[in-house]
Amino acid sequence: MTADAEYCLVVTGPDQAGIVAGISGLITRLGGNIVSLDQFSDNPHGGAFFQRVVFVIGRSAELRAELEQALDLVAGGQRLSWTLTDQSVAKRMIVLASRSDHCLLDLLWRQRRGELPVTIPMVISNHRDAEVDVRSFGVPFVHVPSAGPDKTAAEAELLRLITGNADFVVLARYMQILSSDFLERVGVPLINIHHSFLPAFVGASPYQRAKERGVKLIGATAHYVTDELDEGPIIEQDVARASHADTVADLQRRGADVERQVLSRAVLWHAQDRVVRHGRHTIVFA
Amino acid sequence: MTADAEYCLVVTGPDQAGIVAGISGLITRLGGNIVSLDQFSDNPHGGAFFQRVVFVIGRSAELRAELEQALDLVAGGQRLSWTLTDQSVAKRMIVLASRSDHCLLDLLWRQRRGELPVTIPMVISNHRDAEVDVRSFGVPFVHVPSAGPDKTAAEAELLRLITGNADFVVLARYMQILSSDFLERVGVPLINIHHSFLPAFVGASPYQRAKERGVKLIGATAHYVTDELDEGPIIEQDVARASHADTVADLQRRGADVERQVLSRAVLWHAQDRVVRHGRHTIVFA
Amino acid sequence: MTADAEYCLVVTGPDQAGIVAGISGLITRLGGNIVSLDQFSDNPHGGAFFQRVVFVIGRSAELRAELEQALDLVAGGQRLSWTLTDQSVAKRMIVLASRSDHCLLDLLWRQRRGELPVTIPMVISNHRDAEVDVRSFGVPFVHVPSAGPDKTAAEAELLRLITGNADFVVLARYMQILSSDFLERVGVPLINIHHSFLPAFVGASPYQRAKERGVKLIGATAHYVTDELDEGPIIEQDVARASHADTVADLQRRGADVERQVLSRAVLWHAQDRVVRHGRHTIVFA
Amino acid sequence: MTADAEYCLVVTGPDQAGIVAGISGLITRLGGNIVSLDQFSDNPHGGAFFQRVVFVIGRSAELRAELEQALDLVAGGQRLSWTLTDQSVAKRMIVLASRSDHCLLDLLWRQRRGELPVTIPMVISNHRDAEVDVRSFGVPFVHVPSAGPDKTAAEAELLRLITGNADFVVLARYMQILSSDFLERVGVPLINIHHSFLPAFVGASPYQRAKERGVKLIGATAHYVTDELDEGPIIEQDVARASHADTVADLQRRGADVERQVLSRAVLWHAQDRVVRHGRHTIVFA
Repeated sequence: MTADAEYCLVVTGPDQAGIVAGISGLITRLGGNIVSLDQFSDNPHGGAFFQRVVFVIGRSAELRAELEQALDLVAGGQRLSWTLTDQSVAKRMIVLASRSDHCLLDLLWRQRRGELPVTIPMVISNHRDAEVDVRSFGVPFVHVPSAGPDKTAAEAELLRLITGNADFVVLARYMQILSSDFLERVGVPLINIHHSFLPAFVGASPYQRAKERGVKLIGATAHYVTDELDEGPIIEQDVARASHADTVADLQRRGADVERQVLSRAVLWHAQDRVVRHGRHTIVFA
Repeated sequence: MTADAEYCLVVTGPDQAGIVAGISGLITRLGGNIVSLDQFSDNPHGGAFFQRVVFVIGRSAELRAELEQALDLVAGGQRLSWTLTDQSVAKRMIVLASRSDHCLLDLLWRQRRGELPVTIPMVISNHRDAEVDVRSFGVPFVHVPSAGPDKTAAEAELLRLITGNADFVVLARYMQILSSDFLERVGVPLINIHHSFLPAFVGASPYQRAKERGVKLIGATAHYVTDELDEGPIIEQDVARASHADTVADLQRRGADVERQVLSRAVLWHAQDRVVRHGRHTIVFA
Repeated sequence: MTADAEYCLVVTGPDQAGIVAGISGLITRLGGNIVSLDQFSDNPHGGAFFQRVVFVIGRSAELRAELEQALDLVAGGQRLSWTLTDQSVAKRMIVLASRSDHCLLDLLWRQRRGELPVTIPMVISNHRDAEVDVRSFGVPFVHVPSAGPDKTAAEAELLRLITGNADFVVLARYMQILSSDFLERVGVPLINIHHSFLPAFVGASPYQRAKERGVKLIGATAHYVTDELDEGPIIEQDVARASHADTVADLQRRGADVERQVLSRAVLWHAQDRVVRHGRHTIVFA
Repeated sequence: MTADAEYCLVVTGPDQAGIVAGISGLITRLGGNIVSLDQFSDNPHGGAFFQRVVFVIGRSAELRAELEQALDLVAGGQRLSWTLTDQSVAKRMIVLASRSDHCLLDLLWRQRRGELPVTIPMVISNHRDAEVDVRSFGVPFVHVPSAGPDKTAAEAELLRLITGNADFVVLARYMQILSSDFLERVGVPLINIHHSFLPAFVGASPYQRAKERGVKLIGATAHYVTDELDEGPIIEQDVARASHADTVADLQRRGADVERQVLSRAVLWHAQDRVVRHGRHTIVFA
């Protein structure tokens, strides 16, 4: 099987008859074999259509070019967008962190164990706390301080480090708000983990506010970052039980477990091209 | 054991040394045997203290009087409040409902199979949809319409039916907002089931808004009713998975299962005197 | 849209290139539009292939005949099996019950609420306990006693009632073991709910044995019935928390909630043709 | 408050009237203040009684002696056993591991961030894989190979390392079966994590067998080790969803998350004296 490539094709556009037949037909015609196929239409009559197909096909530049040409042809006639990714090429994930290490270390561990199909070109932090740990994984650590009200220099440094080096960025409890300007210029998706069950407790100190409200469950939310704080498309969420006996510190400790689980699932699915953004929503073929 | 009574004693007040010894000492001195004991202090140094003790003791009016006297004495010295309930006396629960029957029928069925230590003197609804079903459980059904903007007459009728007949009231998806005046006058606790994971989606149409926000979990919350809408002390919460593929109707259907589970747990715990209200919070000895 | 039919097509067979293209191509060619499509291969290189496609297409006897002919043609060339069901035709579900009513009533409620796309031609029980309740749903109740060691007459009566009247049978805590002979002759699938997390506690008294073993979770399992007791293909499972403080009766009560949830999900998925049996396993496109 | 000690007292014995009053009375008499109290009786009429009390009291050798004397007196009259532990003294936990590092690293990391009230005198492994990682936490690593059928020398070495250096031992996916002789001589409790939802899939290769049986949930079980393999008292269990699409490797990966969560909870509760063994069961005051 060494001569075969495994591609992931994601197709989106207006729903209409014949998309599945068109796409699967061209894959078959070029000698490919579909390994998995998911699709979703938010309304069969004039809604939006989403499809993810994984298929194996001979590995050659000619065949790939032919494939892309055929996709352009099929997509053009049906106003579809498509992206084709080679599953053997790991995405490059840069992680931004601050003082808390639970999400950061969990990503490093999982990557090292082979659970996440990504490489980690570097970890950037505005604190030095995790420096030794990060380097013990063989991953470069870069300290970009961001004290003071003016974040312009820090953000410029982040952009310089990220641009060209990352396919996506993960904010692993990075405690700085990034400017709209930064978000416009960064050019790759950013995934954030918020320490509450959004949209409950948008903003700061969610565990403190969860304690004050007396909730019986706490949660975490992984979402894409947009310039509306905590309003980006949600990728994954989960919760854990809480009780009257839990202090804020207990909620933080228990919440940390949920945060790292939720973030790692979101990262995995993003890295496998299982998440499609659509306005304020995500379609997750998990 | 037929001559014995089983009492539940709930004690609250400022935390201080010696409460457990004082209470358990008096129970032992009067010949009682503690079956279960839970306690909680929100701060061992000057916080609030909560205790629930279930104990068996001889059944006689004299002994009960002696017990109450002793409790007054111990409590008086330590500025504690206490309530003593005979576990063999079922609480009277009046249920208010509207069109949706899933929470209502679940409560009726659980009560009939002996899962809830309550009697149900009547079900009141502003619609007639559930009339036949309710009566098939041998429970009286009363129709109190509440059309039009002026709810004064309807609320007066509710008060007339509830007063003296209920130890607590359950709003089993009752779709009317009760006035502050009604809440002041009703004189018994009211438990509501809200069809979202509060404080997310406070107010109307939570499933619609959950769909719009693209959440990956939906939830339900049982809480005591106060005159701030959806802000009363939370008793219990739970969630279920949702995905991009769920329509609003799917969320409602799946949420209905969570609602009836959450409400039945809240009702059970309230009926067993396991829930203590404390400001905006509850202590739940479950 | 009234002129359109919605069909569910399930295709199984040896995995090979071109199945998706072949099937979706013929649907498109006949003017159909695919609403949802799931597929699974247990090994892309020579494994077994499973596909479920829902599509809308013009409603006419001619078109259906043409469709079936085309399916035969495509399937024949690739050694595939297929079944085509009209989604507007509800499956007929006969329920067998004994004394416990929690699973039975839950199915009746859900069916009445429109949650389950089935009709219920009758409920059969070896006890009369549920007679009045069942009939209050407008569903016929038939008492088939099965006392004594010889079940031949009882099973013959069951066969007489079921044959031709049911598309599948649900054992909603039916406490009789059905003979291999019965299972061979009944001719429709049977779904059972077992009150444990199989394969733990196979056989009788699972809650008693869960208590003895001191487990911290209890569960329930819905599975197809085969002539090996509790060994049939599992459709769905779930669990609930237990603790040292739970008595066997507590476990039964709490387990009843899990049982009815698990069974209702299994019935829903079976009724929607989402479950494909494959040896000792199921593929569930849920 | 610096002059105060916080003690945890665990009392077990035959249930009878007056235990709570006796214990809480003596604590109060000696000037202590109860912080939390849990109790459980498996049968109020002649069953076994279990109590855990945390209290603060002046820190002095005299007072502790007086306390122990008073406890002996109360316990003696009621045939109770008791243990008193100073909560400020962390338990010493030795971890045994093999190749898999997910449980091991999780324990090291939780201990470092202050989540587990234990010290880790050393990690012992029959493989060298984790050597560098363990030492990066500042924890000694000792390699004790155990190849070949005769484990006598290896077990003798383990005993030599453990004896006197550990208050309990954790088998963090340690893939060697320990002999009855070793278990008799080790003298401290051992906690094991089994990679299935016991009693399902007792023995080897549980994920393989879970796949073969087609279960829809996989689980993990933390239990005390006895000389009956996988039959020791269960401390904690949890599960995760599985589907037909999961390979054995997927189940292992997903199960690893459950294993480390379950094990860390069991270790925390054991370290806090929240777990009482009683025959084949545990009482967990969590």
